[in-house]
Amino acid sequence: MAKNLEISYLLDFYGDVLTEKQRDVMEQYYNDDLSLAEIADNSGITRQGVRDSIKRGESIVLDLEEKVGFARRYQAVHQGVNQIESLAKEIRFANSGYGSNAEIDKAVDKILEIVGEISE
Amino acid sequence: MAKNLEISYLLDFYGDVLTEKQRDVMEQYYNDDLSLAEIADNSGITRQGVRDSIKRGESIVLDLEEKVGFARRYQAVHQGVNQIESLAKEIRFANSGYGSNAEIDKAVDKILEIVGEISE
Repeated sequence: MAKNLEISYLLDFYGDVLTEKQRDVMEQYYNDDLSLAEIADNSGITRQGVRDSIKRGESIVLDLEEKVGFARRYQAVHQGVNQIESLAKEIRFANSGYGSNAEIDKAVDKILEIVGEISE
Repeated sequence: MAKNLEISYLLDFYGDVLTEKQRDVMEQYYNDDLSLAEIADNSGITRQGVRDSIKRGESIVLDLEEKVGFARRYQAVHQGVNQIESLAKEIRFANSGYGSNAEIDKAVDKILEIVGEISE
């Protein structure tokens, strides 16, 4: 069974939709990188039970992402916000030195603050 | 049965997770503002069936929002992006007239372009 690394990312968005048992097994597999056998030992279920739980959890988060699209939307926003951060710093640099405008600096600071909040 | 107007907003985010029948009934009720009786007539199901379908759909989207939080996250980002837009325009204004810096104008244009893309 090959690990689908996209799943690890999707767990951050949709993990709370899973049952506690599914989430626990998925986290051991995807976040702690444990083997099926190790997870079976930890959880007191069979290796096959672990595999089934992971397969079920994967299909739930993949289906949700297909229908809701929170992760791809988040990625696009994150990318845009990073670009805005760079541009705000360019403005600050272009505005530095002789003849710099304090109003512009203040607005740049505020933009960077908002960027920080959105990126949290 | 009082209409929960939050539901109408959540349908935009989670509507695709519902079954076709649930979504259809929810859209007639929340988007087209039809009564239970009208929806029952349109859909060939009982008024009670319509009510049950709406209740079930409401509980699904409310539960998803509680666990996934896409709508509240989207709202926060949208608010931040609107503020960035205003600040970018303030920078453009502060940079206008004598001694205006072309580099700053260019960066502001780019920020407004990205803001437009994120807001789509």
